[in-house]
Amino acid sequence: MQNFIRYNPTKVIFGKDIIDQIAEEISPIGKKALIVIGKGSVKASGLYARLVSLLNICGIEHSTFEGIKSNPIYQDADAAVKQAQSFKADMVIALGGGSVIDTAKAVAMGFYVDHSTWDFYLQKTKPEKALPIITILTLAATGTEMNPFTVLQDTENGSKRGYGHPLLYPKVSYLDPSFTTTVPADYTAYGVSDLIAHCLEQFFGTGNAPLTDLHTSAVIRLAVNYGLKVKDHPDDYETRANIMWLATNALNGSLTAGKNSGDWACHGFEHSLSVLFDIAHGAGLSIVFPAWLKFHQEKIAAKLAFLAKQVFDIDTGNELDAAKAFIHHLEKFYQQINTPIRLKEVNIDPSAKTAILDNFKLNKVNGQVYKLTEADHEALLNLMW
Amino acid sequence: MQNFIRYNPTKVIFGKDIIDQIAEEISPIGKKALIVIGKGSVKASGLYARLVSLLNICGIEHSTFEGIKSNPIYQDADAAVKQAQSFKADMVIALGGGSVIDTAKAVAMGFYVDHSTWDFYLQKTKPEKALPIITILTLAATGTEMNPFTVLQDTENGSKRGYGHPLLYPKVSYLDPSFTTTVPADYTAYGVSDLIAHCLEQFFGTGNAPLTDLHTSAVIRLAVNYGLKVKDHPDDYETRANIMWLATNALNGSLTAGKNSGDWACHGFEHSLSVLFDIAHGAGLSIVFPAWLKFHQEKIAAKLAFLAKQVFDIDTGNELDAAKAFIHHLEKFYQQINTPIRLKEVNIDPSAKTAILDNFKLNKVNGQVYKLTEADHEALLNLMW
Repeated sequence: MQNFIRYNPTKVIFGKDIIDQIAEEISPIGKKALIVIGKGSVKASGLYARLVSLLNICGIEHSTFEGIKSNPIYQDADAAVKQAQSFKADMVIALGGGSVIDTAKAVAMGFYVDHSTWDFYLQKTKPEKALPIITILTLAATGTEMNPFTVLQDTENGSKRGYGHPLLYPKVSYLDPSFTTTVPADYTAYGVSDLIAHCLEQFFGTGNAPLTDLHTSAVIRLAVNYGLKVKDHPDDYETRANIMWLATNALNGSLTAGKNSGDWACHGFEHSLSVLFDIAHGAGLSIVFPAWLKFHQEKIAAKLAFLAKQVFDIDTGNELDAAKAFIHHLEKFYQQINTPIRLKEVNIDPSAKTAILDNFKLNKVNGQVYKLTEADHEALLNLMW
Repeated sequence: MQNFIRYNPTKVIFGKDIIDQIAEEISPIGKKALIVIGKGSVKASGLYARLVSLLNICGIEHSTFEGIKSNPIYQDADAAVKQAQSFKADMVIALGGGSVIDTAKAVAMGFYVDHSTWDFYLQKTKPEKALPIITILTLAATGTEMNPFTVLQDTENGSKRGYGHPLLYPKVSYLDPSFTTTVPADYTAYGVSDLIAHCLEQFFGTGNAPLTDLHTSAVIRLAVNYGLKVKDHPDDYETRANIMWLATNALNGSLTAGKNSGDWACHGFEHSLSVLFDIAHGAGLSIVFPAWLKFHQEKIAAKLAFLAKQVFDIDTGNELDAAKAFIHHLEKFYQQINTPIRLKEVNIDPSAKTAILDNFKLNKVNGQVYKLTEADHEALLNLMW
């Protein structure tokens, strides 16, 4: 086992109707909340009105910033910071999915500075303090509700970047699975793809950590089970609850204990795809990961054979065969839940090759464990068509 | 899944030589530390001197309270409170195993009050504040290093009680597996028994939580693997590291997500045994648990069959057969690591029956899920001989 630190101060309150007790946690924080939401689905569902009513009951004033995109941009975060500053907010409440929460995190640290939030993502500076962040999650996918990470993009410059800081752990996150029953099938599938990708990125980290590996493979196994089940039972609370909790566990630090933080090349490649073509993150990941696994399959055969057994009950006796079987079954699973596995399925054709490779180069996507050269990028990209 | 809260603010710093960086975490806390230790093994090993030297380097004064017993008593906690108060400590550093840490937790909350620490355990009062608690763990067993619980006893009155409060989460816990390589074989085995018991108590909680169940069974499976391995390789760092991390995970809140807190009858029974006969907690648990499992085996057959498959790769096709096979294999494992499975092995003979049953009654040991009456107590106790 490698030396490691396990620290996660976020309080997760999970279950049906748990936001009705929101006063208990947020009343001690302050009296003015900036609410950040996306493009209106939480208004249509009535959830926004429910939150506002709960805030009114406990005497908390609010100001709402609306319109966060599914690939969120730093300009929205900067505009929300200005709104929070003139409103004199003392907390940020993110009501939505990963893009809304990631923007709220940018707002929380941007509140105390007079420069663009993007400077944090460019690693030009670090936050000294941040507003308390409360999240009410409506989409099971990124895990941001229980981690210190945020991803935004600069669309004009083709740059999507992540940033992490301990001040960005949400103070409290409310996870009510019933809020996700209205998520359409495609975004449900992208969420499952995202959470599996988080497991895989970390699984391929260095370090021998048997409990972490069993825990990781259990998350993937159940993501496959419930990813298939939710197609036919989108309203089933238990199914949604399992997917929600799996997604949180996939990136809350549990899966790196005893290891380094993971490889993360695939997330880099996917960030290039979504910033260039505005595709959903999870859709990009189900295209990138099979290609990456195939590219490295000889080197990682033993690890893939472990996953083949733990996730799909496949035990071939030969590591490379098992590795290939895992990749095959994973692709088949992605197809079953209708998340794409090739670029052509999201209408990206080979004429975009140079633009993609340039973006890989611009964003220096190399992987932390299985290092890739620029020469490897083309071979890897070819596996995505 | 049941509604639940997941919250654990303890920062665990895990790995070889990690205490050398202790200044980073504790310097901001204060300038005066009460150190709590047991009966001298940390002095013999040189670890106490190493800690004192690290504190001197960062200019932190210390006062040491020595002599905590392996079944810790509230009188020691009260005496340590007085010492901490007159020293004007601003933190408590526990250097030792579970009994030392549990005492330090009592000291942390006792510091601010003028009554006995035992009043907390008797549920007469709650702490309003507590000193920051730092732990340096030397024995993998109880999980107290990453949870808000403490267990002390009143030996004269035959009462051993647990208490939990969010103020009792250690602020930082240092887990260096190399500090456990000198733990003798018997206490190593008792630690493994303790961590498995924590898994089982929580596993038999109500609520359908598939990830939690797979996680729990993974901890037990690896505890069996490494529990056997450490017998022949007591100095092996990786083996000790795995056992240490398993013990922490067995009671840090991970294994109750989506369930209630567990049954905990066996811990109640064991507390009676250790307060009456001063046996090691883990030794008592490996006697109590097989009896409890046998007593309930029909009712819990499906759950035991799941464990049989996940822990021992047993799949009989018949639930009750698998349940019995699990109990048999668990007893065999306890015997292999030389932790007792019957009262006679720890020299408790049937003449003690009335005293034990009286203590069960005194401490109202009934279980939270599989309720037991006083009439059941005798049948259960008979299974322990």
